[in-house]
Amino acid sequence: MDYELVIVGGGPAGLTAGIYAARRKLKVLVVERGLCGGQMQVAHELGNWPGAKSVSGQKLSEEMEEHAKSVGVEFLMDEVVDLDIKGEVKKVRTREKTIACKVVILATGGQHRKLNVKGEESFVGKGVSYCATCDGPFFKGKTVAVIGGGNSAIEEAVYMGDIAGKVYLVHSESKLSAEEVIQDKLKGRQVTLMLNAKVEEISGKDFVEKIVVESRGKKSEIPLQGVFISVGQVPSIQFARKAGVEVDAKGFIKVDSSMRTSIPGVYAAGDVTGQIPQVVIASGSAAIAALEAYKHVKGLA
Amino acid sequence: MDYELVIVGGGPAGLTAGIYAARRKLKVLVVERGLCGGQMQVAHELGNWPGAKSVSGQKLSEEMEEHAKSVGVEFLMDEVVDLDIKGEVKKVRTREKTIACKVVILATGGQHRKLNVKGEESFVGKGVSYCATCDGPFFKGKTVAVIGGGNSAIEEAVYMGDIAGKVYLVHSESKLSAEEVIQDKLKGRQVTLMLNAKVEEISGKDFVEKIVVESRGKKSEIPLQGVFISVGQVPSIQFARKAGVEVDAKGFIKVDSSMRTSIPGVYAAGDVTGQIPQVVIASGSAAIAALEAYKHVKGLA
Repeated sequence: MDYELVIVGGGPAGLTAGIYAARRKLKVLVVERGLCGGQMQVAHELGNWPGAKSVSGQKLSEEMEEHAKSVGVEFLMDEVVDLDIKGEVKKVRTREKTIACKVVILATGGQHRKLNVKGEESFVGKGVSYCATCDGPFFKGKTVAVIGGGNSAIEEAVYMGDIAGKVYLVHSESKLSAEEVIQDKLKGRQVTLMLNAKVEEISGKDFVEKIVVESRGKKSEIPLQGVFISVGQVPSIQFARKAGVEVDAKGFIKVDSSMRTSIPGVYAAGDVTGQIPQVVIASGSAAIAALEAYKHVKGLA
Repeated sequence: MDYELVIVGGGPAGLTAGIYAARRKLKVLVVERGLCGGQMQVAHELGNWPGAKSVSGQKLSEEMEEHAKSVGVEFLMDEVVDLDIKGEVKKVRTREKTIACKVVILATGGQHRKLNVKGEESFVGKGVSYCATCDGPFFKGKTVAVIGGGNSAIEEAVYMGDIAGKVYLVHSESKLSAEEVIQDKLKGRQVTLMLNAKVEEISGKDFVEKIVVESRGKKSEIPLQGVFISVGQVPSIQFARKAGVEVDAKGFIKVDSSMRTSIPGVYAAGDVTGQIPQVVIASGSAAIAALEAYKHVKGLA
């Protein structure tokens, strides 16, 4: 056995699980393919990490990684390509090696679905955001657009209506897909609804200045300072699903209140479980997963 | 309506819920009868708050309180004595006033059950701990006693067996109450079991130096540096129960995965829900409760 616990993913969930497990003296490896911190890494500024009025996602990522290293968590910078986790000895296969362990925590996170339009990627953190809860308060009095038509998009538009000076809700279909009771909330609010409207480009100099929208063959420009893209989440579960871990209808890994998946000895935590994508929520669920994983390793579960 | 949201309790759960709700521009009041921070306030040193290798409970409490104030959370230093929360307008009665609101979050926490012996209170943080997960790593190579006979006590003894030099497990009954499979874990471990043994006193100078144990009429002294008291948790739910909130067999408030209690518009978070009593777990659940409470206030739930 190479490790007692292997954690797949080094975002806030993976790092927190590592800290908790290593403090319980488990031999722990975190496998991360890129930089530690996950989606948090790219958050310009977090205003809701409890106790920190403002901290950059990069700084908190580094602090959690250092914390994990200081208590003995080992790291492997490699990509997981396959899992063989149904037996008592679990095998995590990366591009370079195969690691044997007793317990696996899947903390592979999710990615916000992208619009895939020009300017989107280059203005992330400079006016383009995938999370009104995180970044909304920085747009007080500004003009913003929320892109999307589902429950989350409407909630973000309603929320931004209380903060921003003007809010456009831009949706590519002829109808919003959000539940009616949620759509009702738009009534009487300062939200300008644009249906059948496709964002074609986001542009500006240092910061977002406008979007180009195409509607029924006509192009128009909307001057604004913020673009909140809310067109769904894509959980990162390719190899977990292939390995037989049960997922729900939306593609998130199913867990119980102890963060157990459908496979004994395999736990999941953070965004990959479909919980609200917030750093402290991911960390909280990861602490639970790690303490339950500890019990499993010791035969106490 | 005085507030949109009243949070009862100013520990990590209450403060985190306040931060999240206020950032969503709800008018929020936290009612706390003593110092903010709850049980965290008395933790000598936290080693498992993600990103902070070591922080005093007092410092993190102050930082969370300041964070909450900076985003507009109001505080009332008063004791809640009664709740009238079944209707659409909820009423929170304190010693001094009655506050009307739309949503209530119960974050009243729990208290570790005390032994009620001489020296216990005065050595808290100086050798007496109620949480091996929190404080265990500070007792590397030392002699410690774990007091209790339930699942948690055994788990703490097993855990301390990997860290401490010598571990006594002291239980007042003739048999451990932990499940057999958990008791099995003591086999082959450096844990000295003392049954029918009642702790009568904890003593020392600046730091714990010994405990006095009474067993079958005989007193003996055990020299040691640490005493982990694990004789159960007492959730603080007197007025919640009186107000009709459903509790489980152990007296904790029942919640679903959105932290809803049995009463619409009433949420709970943190230790009072019976989750593992860890700061980051309390904060994570409180973020969920606050975001769900926000939806309830806005009619989006």
